[in-house]
Amino acid sequence: MSRFTSEAAFLACIDRHFPNEHPHMVRGRGDDCAVLACPERMSLSSDLFLEGIHFRCSYFSPADIGYKSLAVNLSDLAASGAVPLGFSLGLMVPPADREEASADPAEGVVGGADAQCVLNGAPMGTEAYWDAFFEGMAELAREHGVALTGGDLSKAPVLGVSVSVWGGPAASEQGSVPFLHRSVAKAGDVVFITGDFGLARIGLMALESMGRDAENLYPRAVRAHLRPVPRVADGQAIARYAAVQGGEPRMGLMDLSDGLARDLPRLVGTDKGSQLCVELEIPEEAVHEEIATYCLANDLHALEQATLGGEDYALVGTCPPEWLEGLRTVLPGVRVLGHVAKGDVHMLNGMPWEPCGFDHFA
Amino acid sequence: MSRFTSEAAFLACIDRHFPNEHPHMVRGRGDDCAVLACPERMSLSSDLFLEGIHFRCSYFSPADIGYKSLAVNLSDLAASGAVPLGFSLGLMVPPADREEASADPAEGVVGGADAQCVLNGAPMGTEAYWDAFFEGMAELAREHGVALTGGDLSKAPVLGVSVSVWGGPAASEQGSVPFLHRSVAKAGDVVFITGDFGLARIGLMALESMGRDAENLYPRAVRAHLRPVPRVADGQAIARYAAVQGGEPRMGLMDLSDGLARDLPRLVGTDKGSQLCVELEIPEEAVHEEIATYCLANDLHALEQATLGGEDYALVGTCPPEWLEGLRTVLPGVRVLGHVAKGDVHMLNGMPWEPCGFDHFA
Repeated sequence: MSRFTSEAAFLACIDRHFPNEHPHMVRGRGDDCAVLACPERMSLSSDLFLEGIHFRCSYFSPADIGYKSLAVNLSDLAASGAVPLGFSLGLMVPPADREEASADPAEGVVGGADAQCVLNGAPMGTEAYWDAFFEGMAELAREHGVALTGGDLSKAPVLGVSVSVWGGPAASEQGSVPFLHRSVAKAGDVVFITGDFGLARIGLMALESMGRDAENLYPRAVRAHLRPVPRVADGQAIARYAAVQGGEPRMGLMDLSDGLARDLPRLVGTDKGSQLCVELEIPEEAVHEEIATYCLANDLHALEQATLGGEDYALVGTCPPEWLEGLRTVLPGVRVLGHVAKGDVHMLNGMPWEPCGFDHFA
Repeated sequence: MSRFTSEAAFLACIDRHFPNEHPHMVRGRGDDCAVLACPERMSLSSDLFLEGIHFRCSYFSPADIGYKSLAVNLSDLAASGAVPLGFSLGLMVPPADREEASADPAEGVVGGADAQCVLNGAPMGTEAYWDAFFEGMAELAREHGVALTGGDLSKAPVLGVSVSVWGGPAASEQGSVPFLHRSVAKAGDVVFITGDFGLARIGLMALESMGRDAENLYPRAVRAHLRPVPRVADGQAIARYAAVQGGEPRMGLMDLSDGLARDLPRLVGTDKGSQLCVELEIPEEAVHEEIATYCLANDLHALEQATLGGEDYALVGTCPPEWLEGLRTVLPGVRVLGHVAKGDVHMLNGMPWEPCGFDHFA
């Protein structure tokens, strides 16, 4: 398998996948800086996507890694209702011979390199591997019309991707649509969701125990973990709907990256002293059937897993209850999870519910 | 030494150092996206700064790491003549107990964690360590008036920083000053520089062999490596001067990050088929005296080291020779290194000169 012999060859591979022209990009890759043509307001987000922390090479194909590293960033833009315009890419590239040099995860190194990084017949470091990686990323970039404006390339002990992505406001007949954000909820608002919750966690657990064989038993869950869909069109539809209502901002929105248990308190601003909580009513049948099946087979509590699970990249929001009917006419898939209340004890199906979830330092 | 026990505590430490308000930042940290108030054009750059690749914890204090990771990004903006506005930060945080778990660099892991990360009495992972890191970064951010708009935080096997930085055009009496870039040189243009070249490389070599004791013998070189100064005001002055001349863009500019030998061919567009080369005349006395001293002591060729050395973050440029006098009235420190010529053989002091330098894949 051939390997890149120079930085120029690697950059040429990037150029084959990403056009260096875009209406928003006055000057593209190949200089110290890109030059952007900017709307008056831009929404911007940055995310890291690191081997051993956010993904494993043993069951992520290179195309999955390229895809998901951009998808999780586009999801943040989706949560603001933005129209994606461009992104920059910091790429951490392990040495080509690292099969020999890789750290042993068993030794306790957090985020150590996977020993096995050969999926789809393309070992890490080969041109075929990176070609697949960039194609997975470029496919999603094309779908959303975002330009790769530049970035940086470095050797690193493990594969890692750092993406910054930005977008402009959606347009409506009344002009620019304001971006959405969290923490605008009031007591009595409904809590709604577009998409699944907890499914990606089941996919992760199944992949961890079975590898890619998990696809046979839990195809939707595995796909939710490997190829989450950023709900960019949904976010814009929600932002447009909110803009039409006018008045003070009453539509709160965020993406579900750390799980309902951790993200809902953030959505209603509990962490910022809003003195609001959520009261959820989630019937058993609202939990995806693959979650139920996996939990039955593995002696787990399905609803608990569903509310703990992160990385679903559904959109969760709050709005006045009287907006719900109208919202459903523009987004028929919207489901209600519960409502916002005064107080500091979150509730789930009538029981006190301790918000928790993933914490990098806990 | 106390350590952070939650992500919230870590984020609170960031908030103590970086105000969450800025005229350019309509919505700051704490949501899925930041919202920026944008000029019509923005200049944007992203850089990685990774332990074991770009810095070593054994002789970089936490404040040095925080400072330099932002400085190298601001330098890219300086090269476009931009006014810095904001940056986002992806922070890769090694586990608090990694002294025990760190990979042994002797085993050949590229970018392995330094065993010794205790400088200034603050071991890696403690609150004191991160406090110093953020203070080093915040000091520079305050100096340049840039807002930290958000970012991401993740565990990682080694300490790493990913920064994206952006800025708007400088202002003049005639309005917005166009950004500068590379590859506008014509045969006959002069090649000029603001700042030193090769000094940071000597600092690196001295630090590698002597640790922080190198400061006693090579204080300027060590400082050039640990605390490079982004020439933001110089870049703006050069861009303003070029704008006043009017006509087609004739001022080329970039920052010296990979060394004269690698960067000058890029400045004149040799890599993009410009069919131009540089003919340099660099007398011995143009090389910084600490380079000369180090090379004498270590049996190295001073001029060779000076032209190979990267990470100086001086600005190098090309312009018509008749602009030089005027340029010197706004930037008295400008030095001429040579001129641009037709052809593909770069020359140094009358001898053919093979462009080379650092390549991540070579």
